[in-house]
Amino acid sequence: MTNPILVEVMRGAVVESRHRGAVAVADAAGRTVFCLGDIAVPVFPRSAIKALQALPLVEEGAADRYGFGEEELALACASHSGEPAHVAGVESMLAKTGLAVSALRCGVHWPMAQDAAAAAARAGGPSALHNNCSGKHAGFLCLACAMGVDTADYFRPEHPVQSHVRAVLEDLTGVTLDREVCAIDGCSVPTWAMPLGRLAHGFAKFGTGHGLAPQRARAAARLREACARQPWFVAGTGRFCTEIMQRFGRRVFVKTGAEGVYCGALPEQGLGIAVKCDDGAGRAAQAIMAAVIARFLPLDAAARAALEPFIRPVLRNWNGFEVGALRMSEALT
Amino acid sequence: MTNPILVEVMRGAVVESRHRGAVAVADAAGRTVFCLGDIAVPVFPRSAIKALQALPLVEEGAADRYGFGEEELALACASHSGEPAHVAGVESMLAKTGLAVSALRCGVHWPMAQDAAAAAARAGGPSALHNNCSGKHAGFLCLACAMGVDTADYFRPEHPVQSHVRAVLEDLTGVTLDREVCAIDGCSVPTWAMPLGRLAHGFAKFGTGHGLAPQRARAAARLREACARQPWFVAGTGRFCTEIMQRFGRRVFVKTGAEGVYCGALPEQGLGIAVKCDDGAGRAAQAIMAAVIARFLPLDAAARAALEPFIRPVLRNWNGFEVGALRMSEALT
Repeated sequence: MTNPILVEVMRGAVVESRHRGAVAVADAAGRTVFCLGDIAVPVFPRSAIKALQALPLVEEGAADRYGFGEEELALACASHSGEPAHVAGVESMLAKTGLAVSALRCGVHWPMAQDAAAAAARAGGPSALHNNCSGKHAGFLCLACAMGVDTADYFRPEHPVQSHVRAVLEDLTGVTLDREVCAIDGCSVPTWAMPLGRLAHGFAKFGTGHGLAPQRARAAARLREACARQPWFVAGTGRFCTEIMQRFGRRVFVKTGAEGVYCGALPEQGLGIAVKCDDGAGRAAQAIMAAVIARFLPLDAAARAALEPFIRPVLRNWNGFEVGALRMSEALT
Repeated sequence: MTNPILVEVMRGAVVESRHRGAVAVADAAGRTVFCLGDIAVPVFPRSAIKALQALPLVEEGAADRYGFGEEELALACASHSGEPAHVAGVESMLAKTGLAVSALRCGVHWPMAQDAAAAAARAGGPSALHNNCSGKHAGFLCLACAMGVDTADYFRPEHPVQSHVRAVLEDLTGVTLDREVCAIDGCSVPTWAMPLGRLAHGFAKFGTGHGLAPQRARAAARLREACARQPWFVAGTGRFCTEIMQRFGRRVFVKTGAEGVYCGALPEQGLGIAVKCDDGAGRAAQAIMAAVIARFLPLDAAARAALEPFIRPVLRNWNGFEVGALRMSEALT
């Protein structure tokens, strides 16, 4: 099936570009509450499931053993911007675990935040600490240490850490994640494609604890709490995930992933959300997630007004002139 | 009509993302030689038509009056990476015209080239010279000086420079460019939406001179020659436009634009090409353009092999691991 156009990019009065995609909203019993497009086709969740990948770190007692605080738990769930406090937080995670920066196998990229990139340039270039996934990797390393397994190959699909993560993902989503749907993520850990509807179901379980074993439900609650209290560590200055969780706290969990994926949970409503933009466009996926939140979360006028610039963002050029806007599909408003 | 999927983004063995789009190939008489998707819907050509926007600079004698060489003409047609010699070239254009950097109204952004961005960071940040459009803007300023009109508002639609550019675009494409299809580009000059088929026709005329007045045909030939001889100044190190024109010289003119647009010409074949990716993805538009060149330009085995990595690029992650590839539609191969 051809997914519907969910977002149009307007320049002046003309549609310049179009984004198709799919949306699934599900409850913890696995009922699809709302959907647009094909939610059965497998989608790589990429970084949108970092919080699920961090569950073993908490469940196995590794985070407690090494004394991780809320900032560090939030970093384990983060695609951070590589700002100084993000880098310091990941350094702290490694130091508490007794590991060097060289243990990180996520690779190196320039910080997403322009100021941080400029600072890194002045300091001689970025390190693996600046990689947006460095907190997740520090969490995996911590888990490997707590499990007493080797830390050299923690990112490989056959390593006990990744096997553990896979089992948790299978428990949350109800999907068997076999080799045919396994690929390598940007930071070199495995990523498994799964239907968007199952992903939404997994996030409903993560957001509520319903359908999870008590220890797993407690770990989910603790990670949600860490992200709700330290949202800056989940993304960074001015970023959508941070701004939404700063405003809504425990009412909304939201996390971006590469290639136009967004996942989230509305714990009070008992709902999980999964979004995939067909073409991988983050700008559209973010606007769609904002529209879904506005549709399913009861909002007062101020909160609705705060979401509006994310649902229908104005586009400005290098001089700050207004040149266009994103236009959201009526199916989502 | 729904445009076809032209490029699939593979991660491992799974399709992760999909790009739809349209392609037009036309001759100078306006015959459509090849097309995919809707080539009648208006599309903003953005920076893909900088060479057409530079025609008045040459035609009116402005480039000669201020002594512009081939590098400077190539910069007038460029979306450059902000590398040191690009910046120096635009400085030279302004100096020859007797204007300061502050005359540029393109706005400021960080250089596209990572090394150049790091260097700019160490030097205190970028200036308008680093804007990828600064050469085009220096060309507009030079034209304004030669026309004896004010240089303050050269970027506005009603300014004589932009009226002149619009008339040239109308002559090349045969489209009446009125207010309803006019919007503001990233660098603040007007951009007019026009059908992809007309854009391809315009590039066939630009590439051959057929159907143009003698003075305009000579200006087109001179700009093509400047870009063929100085392709590094049209884009920059490692960029597609530069690498293609370095390899094929006068046989291929190619130019990228924002939001998934590519335009080009194959002068020996008498063909113009226009590509638009529905969602604005440059990665897909570039691969499509490479595939169109490979289809319509007679190639020896070495040249075909050189194009292959652009048509079916391998995707690597931050560790350099191969994680996937772009898969081109059979309709284009």
